[in-house]
Amino acid sequence: MVDLSAERLRALEDHEEIRNLIASYGPLADSGDAAAVAALWTEDGVYAVDGFPEACGRAAIAALIEGPVHRDLMARGCAHVLGVPVVALQGDRATAQCHSVVLAKGNKGWEPVRVAANRWELVRTAQGWRVTRRDNALLDGREEARALLAR
Amino acid sequence: MVDLSAERLRALEDHEEIRNLIASYGPLADSGDAAAVAALWTEDGVYAVDGFPEACGRAAIAALIEGPVHRDLMARGCAHVLGVPVVALQGDRATAQCHSVVLAKGNKGWEPVRVAANRWELVRTAQGWRVTRRDNALLDGREEARALLAR
Amino acid sequence: MVDLSAERLRALEDHEEIRNLIASYGPLADSGDAAAVAALWTEDGVYAVDGFPEACGRAAIAALIEGPVHRDLMARGCAHVLGVPVVALQGDRATAQCHSVVLAKGNKGWEPVRVAANRWELVRTAQGWRVTRRDNALLDGREEARALLAR
Repeated sequence: MVDLSAERLRALEDHEEIRNLIASYGPLADSGDAAAVAALWTEDGVYAVDGFPEACGRAAIAALIEGPVHRDLMARGCAHVLGVPVVALQGDRATAQCHSVVLAKGNKGWEPVRVAANRWELVRTAQGWRVTRRDNALLDGREEARALLAR
Repeated sequence: MVDLSAERLRALEDHEEIRNLIASYGPLADSGDAAAVAALWTEDGVYAVDGFPEACGRAAIAALIEGPVHRDLMARGCAHVLGVPVVALQGDRATAQCHSVVLAKGNKGWEPVRVAANRWELVRTAQGWRVTRRDNALLDGREEARALLAR
Repeated sequence: MVDLSAERLRALEDHEEIRNLIASYGPLADSGDAAAVAALWTEDGVYAVDGFPEACGRAAIAALIEGPVHRDLMARGCAHVLGVPVVALQGDRATAQCHSVVLAKGNKGWEPVRVAANRWELVRTAQGWRVTRRDNALLDGREEARALLAR
């Protein structure tokens, strides 16, 4: 007999862990913790962020947080706010979709400097859920960004 | 003996499913999937969105997504960002409350063009949780909008 | 034998309850329910909100919601939008971290008038989870705010 309760319990824990993983991105990025941001991904994970070369692997992802664009945002004051993710579990794999809004402080207060669509691919590892790929595209009218949010 | 664990497990699953349902609205709306947006509601569900005639039934809800106001927002680039919902379960019924922020791209970048209060009424159906009514009111100082967020 | 399922079920319920508690802040604040906002904290809970004297105890926290700054925001139209919290449970204690964005209506539409980092300390009480301390600091480039989001 399959213990359905155990499967249901694990599915709930998976949802909770994945939501927590994605929610961690903003606070870790805004506190400048490049190593912790990179560790959200697998060793060979990919972060394809609109306007930057595709970052492949943890060193490249950490470099985005250590780089001049992100450091300038932090010096101005910034918030990388991610929306509530829509998560679809498939066993040891999962996908998630959400908006992201980067607010940065300027002379006249905070402004949304990036508003983007995000699609995440995740995998269960021995150390817990990790991101294998995150695609990010600015919602500026292009079909490419809308496609990341499609079911 | 009532199996309390089973009830607790189901309540957690209900919370997860309702959160996912509400979180789906933004990505589905911003990808222009009118049929999928409408299917978040029951067949005779109501979406009372501030500034528009009350949409009753899935065809009317889909028409909002297919309509000129929404299509113009999509062409400019837009994000319908919903806040974390506060969910109250009552058996096969539930209510939820959250903010919604619509960011749209203009000549000078993205701007919050709508900031609203939302109250959702939901029902458990044979196909899962569905929205029976969503009330939306702009937070522009009117008591009507604040009332949607009251306990 | 320890019933691991019971512990896992309770941990999931704790996460759900804490997320709901934090998500309640915005709707309760924006509907002007000072008593309900204060009741999210323990009797002697602290709300250290950037730019205001530290509020110690429920009466002081309620006074922030009843005070002229918050009442003016409500009259203009405002949304206190909190991000998805990153929650860390340690038995009967927990911490959570999230962004908060206050949008207020002005002559030219809504603007983000406060963008802040938040760190919450929570405790399990006989009445459920309550906040013992919330630290809030504006993300305006100061290290103090970034530190609230650090792991």
